[in-house]
Amino acid sequence: MDTMKTRRAVRLLIASWLPLAALYAQAPPPLISPEVHPDGKVTFRFNAPNAQKVELRREGAAPVAMAKDERGIWTVTVGPLEPDFYGYTFVADGAAYLDPANWLMKPNLLNPQSMVHVPGPKTLPWEVNNVPHGVIHRHFYHSDVVGDDRDFYVYTPPGYDARASRRYPVLYLLHGYSDDASAWTAVGRAHVILDNLIAQGKAKPMLVVMPLGYGAPEIARRGGPGFRDPQAWRRNIERFRDALLREVIPLVEKNYRVAADRTQRAIAGLSMGGTQSLYTGLNALETFAYVGAFSSGGLLPDFDKVFPTLDEKANQKLRLLWIACGTEDRLIEGNRKLLEWLKSKGVKYTWVETPGAHTWLVWRRYLAQFAPLLF
Amino acid sequence: MDTMKTRRAVRLLIASWLPLAALYAQAPPPLISPEVHPDGKVTFRFNAPNAQKVELRREGAAPVAMAKDERGIWTVTVGPLEPDFYGYTFVADGAAYLDPANWLMKPNLLNPQSMVHVPGPKTLPWEVNNVPHGVIHRHFYHSDVVGDDRDFYVYTPPGYDARASRRYPVLYLLHGYSDDASAWTAVGRAHVILDNLIAQGKAKPMLVVMPLGYGAPEIARRGGPGFRDPQAWRRNIERFRDALLREVIPLVEKNYRVAADRTQRAIAGLSMGGTQSLYTGLNALETFAYVGAFSSGGLLPDFDKVFPTLDEKANQKLRLLWIACGTEDRLIEGNRKLLEWLKSKGVKYTWVETPGAHTWLVWRRYLAQFAPLLF
Repeated sequence: MDTMKTRRAVRLLIASWLPLAALYAQAPPPLISPEVHPDGKVTFRFNAPNAQKVELRREGAAPVAMAKDERGIWTVTVGPLEPDFYGYTFVADGAAYLDPANWLMKPNLLNPQSMVHVPGPKTLPWEVNNVPHGVIHRHFYHSDVVGDDRDFYVYTPPGYDARASRRYPVLYLLHGYSDDASAWTAVGRAHVILDNLIAQGKAKPMLVVMPLGYGAPEIARRGGPGFRDPQAWRRNIERFRDALLREVIPLVEKNYRVAADRTQRAIAGLSMGGTQSLYTGLNALETFAYVGAFSSGGLLPDFDKVFPTLDEKANQKLRLLWIACGTEDRLIEGNRKLLEWLKSKGVKYTWVETPGAHTWLVWRRYLAQFAPLLF
Repeated sequence: MDTMKTRRAVRLLIASWLPLAALYAQAPPPLISPEVHPDGKVTFRFNAPNAQKVELRREGAAPVAMAKDERGIWTVTVGPLEPDFYGYTFVADGAAYLDPANWLMKPNLLNPQSMVHVPGPKTLPWEVNNVPHGVIHRHFYHSDVVGDDRDFYVYTPPGYDARASRRYPVLYLLHGYSDDASAWTAVGRAHVILDNLIAQGKAKPMLVVMPLGYGAPEIARRGGPGFRDPQAWRRNIERFRDALLREVIPLVEKNYRVAADRTQRAIAGLSMGGTQSLYTGLNALETFAYVGAFSSGGLLPDFDKVFPTLDEKANQKLRLLWIACGTEDRLIEGNRKLLEWLKSKGVKYTWVETPGAHTWLVWRRYLAQFAPLLF
């Protein structure tokens, strides 16, 4: 068709969208929230006409009061905020709500939140750049160890080709308590961070495998035992390790061109996943040569019992034991006790203490610091 | 370590979770919502102590009033519901809210919702079975056609092996207005439906490619032009087609073992995606031999202008033109007009009219009916 005809056709096609438009016309007039201003300030808006008190609760910040206008819309402008991704909820009369105007969600099995992106310079590790991108693969399998149907995610780096002979190293990257297997990509931006580090030549091309971190999934169910049932915790730790070693790693090594060699495997995680990395990794140095623990929770004072075979001989096998925590994180004391014990056993480690609390703001930066040290 | 020692070690490790437990102890006591009962009834609960009126708005159903208890918790029990996945929100004093107690979300750029799964017999196409599972791959690329960074999803069937010589057919599967590229998997369960159909021998093993359906992404932004700006609509339709034909299909055919042949390519979609499938597919029979339109919106009465070259000669190329709509969908009239026109032009089609409205309940079933007819 010539251009004139095409234009007329499309104009007519457009006119015909009206019935579909009518379907969506039922929607209320759009409330814009969050609105990120060019200077980094952010306006949040929440429609709650009969609420008495509404606060914005933002990741890594104290709650901030919101003010109501004549239409019943509560508003607050904060910042300028440091460029990053922030989880948040609105707390109205004591109850937490997601932002219904915001499509960007922070998935979480117990406390889902909304998320806002304050964009920053392209040099920030989590900002998308026009560089070659890796691919995120989501696998599904039935776990005989845990007895459920579950998933794991695999990041393959740019240029990965299943048909080529090159074999890649693998980082097993574990989420925290209440996260799901999508957390390290959806919230942690692991794929973007790796794309950028690889493009800059700062990290080696590697696969990143992000499994579901529950050996006892009921601990992350609302109304489930949570932290109260020690038996459930025990199952959670042991069965996660078993599912990882017996199911996930073999599936990855069967389906991807990876080097099945301890010097080409790393394990790291945040919070619960940090403890799982220490427990699984330091007790399996025949499998992992790199261990990372970000803001670990669940560090035991009686480390002799948790790591019965760990001593200075581990230094021959451990290429890196990287332990990091934010100074505003109440878990830092447990981490410091671990460091003392490691020192007493002659086990070498790298300790990184940074500003920050128990938040993803810290963990994105840790991944960006840790990945370049691997392989 | 022997078993006794292991047990003691783990018990001590568990005790040490207390500091982490303390972190989460700040969370309010868990409200359970939704609660799916064994008989298919579902109880929804929503904490809104000062709201005057709260309703449950569920996909495919009229709003239902909720009742408040002495703690300010609004509750309603509905059903038994037919086994399926249902999107829902709570509407309190006129404003819609997600269910903050529910981790299962229905992603949507304009109107995100919560989602509840009422489980049913394993014979339902969207129920996970212990059969071989395909893999979902998420690709990222910079679109020169649209001028943004975007993603597309690719489902590969069980047994797909990039290293083998077999080449697979491809279904390009398009979402509706306000959905994002994850909709057909996160909401439509396309990967589960295909896993099941393939395991039963009802559908041929195929790839399913799910691109982002916006040629003009601003139409799906809050505060954007929506349906009001005909130029934006025109860009949306034309640039989506261009991005699909010039960018997505070449990327798929470069990265996967697929047959680059019109008889091995299908295009189908729902609502806006149905219209895009008709517009793109029926004007590019050199590229697609199968076209599916589920509950299409935007069907033009003056079809001569939209499909200027379409006539009975198309029957030689079109292996299937499958058009379906729910009888409670107000878009059905536009679909019936298209059928009359196709008949007048001698173009063969399959028309499927089913109970149902403009909802995912209908579209999951359409995919399960349509996929077995392909290739």
